[in-house]
Amino acid sequence: MRTKLAVALLPLMLGAETASAPPAAPAQDVRFVTLGTNSGPIPNPERAEPANLLKVGDRNILIDAGDGAAWQLAKAGVHLPEIHTIFISHLHFDHTGGLFALISQRYQMLEPSPLAIYGPPGTKALVDDLVAAIMASSMGGNNMRAFMPGDPAANLHVTELTDGAEVALGDVKVKAVRNTHYVATPGGDAPDALSFAYRFDTPHRSVVFTGDTGPSEAVEQLAKGADLLVAEVMDPDISLVSIFADNPDTPMMIRDMIADHFRREHLSPQEVGEMARRAGVKQLVLTHDAIPDDDIPAARETIAKYYAGPFAFANDLDSF
Amino acid sequence: MRTKLAVALLPLMLGAETASAPPAAPAQDVRFVTLGTNSGPIPNPERAEPANLLKVGDRNILIDAGDGAAWQLAKAGVHLPEIHTIFISHLHFDHTGGLFALISQRYQMLEPSPLAIYGPPGTKALVDDLVAAIMASSMGGNNMRAFMPGDPAANLHVTELTDGAEVALGDVKVKAVRNTHYVATPGGDAPDALSFAYRFDTPHRSVVFTGDTGPSEAVEQLAKGADLLVAEVMDPDISLVSIFADNPDTPMMIRDMIADHFRREHLSPQEVGEMARRAGVKQLVLTHDAIPDDDIPAARETIAKYYAGPFAFANDLDSF
Repeated sequence: MRTKLAVALLPLMLGAETASAPPAAPAQDVRFVTLGTNSGPIPNPERAEPANLLKVGDRNILIDAGDGAAWQLAKAGVHLPEIHTIFISHLHFDHTGGLFALISQRYQMLEPSPLAIYGPPGTKALVDDLVAAIMASSMGGNNMRAFMPGDPAANLHVTELTDGAEVALGDVKVKAVRNTHYVATPGGDAPDALSFAYRFDTPHRSVVFTGDTGPSEAVEQLAKGADLLVAEVMDPDISLVSIFADNPDTPMMIRDMIADHFRREHLSPQEVGEMARRAGVKQLVLTHDAIPDDDIPAARETIAKYYAGPFAFANDLDSF
Repeated sequence: MRTKLAVALLPLMLGAETASAPPAAPAQDVRFVTLGTNSGPIPNPERAEPANLLKVGDRNILIDAGDGAAWQLAKAGVHLPEIHTIFISHLHFDHTGGLFALISQRYQMLEPSPLAIYGPPGTKALVDDLVAAIMASSMGGNNMRAFMPGDPAANLHVTELTDGAEVALGDVKVKAVRNTHYVATPGGDAPDALSFAYRFDTPHRSVVFTGDTGPSEAVEQLAKGADLLVAEVMDPDISLVSIFADNPDTPMMIRDMIADHFRREHLSPQEVGEMARRAGVKQLVLTHDAIPDDDIPAARETIAKYYAGPFAFANDLDSF
């Protein structure tokens, strides 16, 4: 009885908002904030792990959730319970590592607001296991169990997407398209392994996020005429030289495998420029940045050779 | 066959260190780095969630692992695979939210070095579920499955501690003692709910970390004569005024419950000062800082009234 009362009153006493549906998206300002611009999974003191915020009026959409995503959101001025929607591009851990903190801290904050998570096949099992980890903590040695809402999954809704899937969030239309991040890796031939690019069409602006990908006609089509294309970028040649300098004994077969991965599953400056030009996008932003600082000027020159529009290499918390 | 070869060669090709036992602790420099000093779980733009690094020579011990702990470690110059030991004080999510990113990114980095995690009852189930989440991601849609070592738990060892438990790590002796963070919360009467303070005795320096706690004779005893006491601190009166100003309709019974939680399960400036004096510690550091900046000068004065030794309010990445 006492417990029930406490649970019912806690949102009030802790200053939380009462439960409410996600706000409708007013046709307002549309901003894309690069919360984390590292190309994980090796932590980088200078850049947070991959995460992005798409603000459409009052609607906050998180795109990928690497380590520290909840913290980066706070730095961008977004309170955790104001996130009602997350899109995950693919299940590499540099893009999902921050989900546990995000879901569990939200739970500990006693916020009943709904959270919808969209991602490739596997996302549901991932979130189910994170919820189990929350339950294990709450049951096994956590004094807040009386304060906690009973089921950490109660307001969580996971939707696994397929290639070409469309999602409507008020007047924001989202489309998921399979990219080429999984085409070359040995063993990566499982038919259920999907990595997505996303397009977000809002009343006043369209934004396409490539996710991690190599060259892809499907992503190029998805990006047609977009106001903003947010693309990953790496320079395979620079990365290969660096790796093999550190590991001179790497056998030729392994060198070829790595080169194949870099060349077919990531985008070089030239490929990004070509994709942006062919798609006719109005602005280009580079993130998931695997190019050393010293080599950025050369990468800029290369991109400018292929794409005449405005472009920028993003830093954490930049807004476009 | 190809997969096995790839797995065997990956540490080499990706520049990883080869598998090795944790280094023995030389009797060298002992530093305590406050990686994250926020009092969670509400993300704070100015402070990372709770996490601390104890460096004893080449040995790196992580104490608590809030959101972004892996990132804070990188900022402190510690490569993820160089962490072989984690101590968790208790299972509130502001202290564990970063564990998923830490374990999963380490796995994605293909680092086979061992990782021992110590914590209260519930820690094993928590880590098991996080490992399951890694497996779900790898099986359900992750192209790196061929690269991944088969079992993400293979080099993970979880030990659940009881009140008074001692752990020897080379010449570092660790002792866990039940603190009072769980004494007052309604429903927090489960006999298996433990929250710990830790003492680390090294050849040249002794460090005591209170965890989250209220006044506690056991923690005071644990801290006797320590070179460094790292303590949480909050001002219950300031926090209560602020909460009830925001929520003026909070019923009296609930006000009493919250006040009881703040007063018995957290440490006020006076209580911290008294604990440090009675324990005769040589230096005091305040973290898990719930005191607004404007009120820090008054808190300093109060502490100085009760404790004559040197003390400091820690910021993220400070080293003591």
